[in-house]
Amino acid sequence: MDLRDPLALDRVRHLFKQAAFVTDVGIELRDLGPGWVESGLVVAPRHGQAEQFIHGGVQATMADHTAGAAAGTLAAAEEVVVTVEYKINFLKPARGTHLRCRAEVLRPGRTLIVVEAKVYTDNQTSNPVAAAMVTLAVIPDPTKRA
Amino acid sequence: MDLRDPLALDRVRHLFKQAAFVTDVGIELRDLGPGWVESGLVVAPRHGQAEQFIHGGVQATMADHTAGAAAGTLAAAEEVVVTVEYKINFLKPARGTHLRCRAEVLRPGRTLIVVEAKVYTDNQTSNPVAAAMVTLAVIPDPTKRA
Amino acid sequence: MDLRDPLALDRVRHLFKQAAFVTDVGIELRDLGPGWVESGLVVAPRHGQAEQFIHGGVQATMADHTAGAAAGTLAAAEEVVVTVEYKINFLKPARGTHLRCRAEVLRPGRTLIVVEAKVYTDNQTSNPVAAAMVTLAVIPDPTKRA
Amino acid sequence: MDLRDPLALDRVRHLFKQAAFVTDVGIELRDLGPGWVESGLVVAPRHGQAEQFIHGGVQATMADHTAGAAAGTLAAAEEVVVTVEYKINFLKPARGTHLRCRAEVLRPGRTLIVVEAKVYTDNQTSNPVAAAMVTLAVIPDPTKRA
Repeated sequence: MDLRDPLALDRVRHLFKQAAFVTDVGIELRDLGPGWVESGLVVAPRHGQAEQFIHGGVQATMADHTAGAAAGTLAAAEEVVVTVEYKINFLKPARGTHLRCRAEVLRPGRTLIVVEAKVYTDNQTSNPVAAAMVTLAVIPDPTKRA
Repeated sequence: MDLRDPLALDRVRHLFKQAAFVTDVGIELRDLGPGWVESGLVVAPRHGQAEQFIHGGVQATMADHTAGAAAGTLAAAEEVVVTVEYKINFLKPARGTHLRCRAEVLRPGRTLIVVEAKVYTDNQTSNPVAAAMVTLAVIPDPTKRA
Repeated sequence: MDLRDPLALDRVRHLFKQAAFVTDVGIELRDLGPGWVESGLVVAPRHGQAEQFIHGGVQATMADHTAGAAAGTLAAAEEVVVTVEYKINFLKPARGTHLRCRAEVLRPGRTLIVVEAKVYTDNQTSNPVAAAMVTLAVIPDPTKRA
Repeated sequence: MDLRDPLALDRVRHLFKQAAFVTDVGIELRDLGPGWVESGLVVAPRHGQAEQFIHGGVQATMADHTAGAAAGTLAAAEEVVVTVEYKINFLKPARGTHLRCRAEVLRPGRTLIVVEAKVYTDNQTSNPVAAAMVTLAVIPDPTKRA
């Protein structure tokens, strides 16, 4: 997929860390390219649901934010993306020491972008613990208003 | 809706606080009855997305967990509920000092329960900032296995 | 909710019948107002799934199209709405001689509209057989292009 | 993925045609294997939305039914699957003479199966017009009750 802004990847790297909640939860950007982003998380006791499982809210926050970053790689220079909605399926109990999320743009629209995001535990690359489909809107960057 | 376990409301009160991530985020149970639960959150800077908005991950975690609690009020004594999937629409930018979530069971099934959850800011009772539809499975309580 | 186009209700009445598939399935507009629409369907054997149940595809088509009509009541004169995505939960087996769908706008946005739609059998007004949440985009009417 | 019933593929072939609505719309099974199904449809004027586009209800019915068939390949001999819920994103206007749907099981559970389904126009194998994620429940076959 083509970048509309040659500086988009740097911008996404910068914006990823700007979300206080994402930093608070401990989700970090790991790698990215045009239309895709990977993120990671070191699991801690505070991420738990019960019985050593990782809470769905952690997985959903990761899927949503990583999908937003993947969509953001395709935004133009004065645009940002916001999540319109998503659906997430929890495919099996999430247990492990690390979470990894890979998000890939399925529809690179000018005003609406659709992204698939999958969450994996530890070193898994198949059999995700969660799968999400995320719709995002491309809007003018509110911090760039004259 | 009828309770299957006369102690279900006490059990939900207890279980609500057991999820480490929900406690870490600061989501608290406020009120409950058969088939419904309300929760609240005092917004802090760490809940932010950008520009003083509350991150979607906070709203989603709240909707999911509150829906789970609402479903849990209808579980039998040796059962728990787990989230199968949900969809959440972010209806407008969430800005405020408090979040409130109300979750109501739409389908009180024996094995699958469907719950609607809406998230409001401050003292709003209409115009939610987010609306979710959550599917949960009723399973045997894994801590009660012989 | 306020109409942006005083002729919107007439326009929705006209457009509802324009969709060949909806007419083919037998879905009819029954009533409407600003931000809401009700539709009906007389169930025939061809709508079946198996065991006399009404196929989910009938219910989904009805929920989607009725939600689109509800959103359409809020469009301006030179705009139409298109479905971006939806989620639908089938709450119980649908069996009966009639289906009714009521769709209500939850978020009356200028570019994105979110609608809740519920499908009922026969004379039911509670306990829907299906519940959908539908996101629609407002776009310039392609037939009005200069 | 492993079949639980050696006759499952034959059974899915048979059941696919049993749904009156699917036959009425013109959706046909084209190919299948353990955990996946492909279906096809010859587009006719009655499938239309407006402006020569294929109605979302056609695409959704196809995604839902094909996903159900894919899940059905993993059911045991006395079991059937029913759709619990799905989400579908319409990725671009669907225009063409043929629709093709490919559904693949993402979570082959004993009681809940999750399937991804994508719908393509004409001879496309990438750039789907619609993408769905479908949750299905595995239940005892009601026609086999003693």
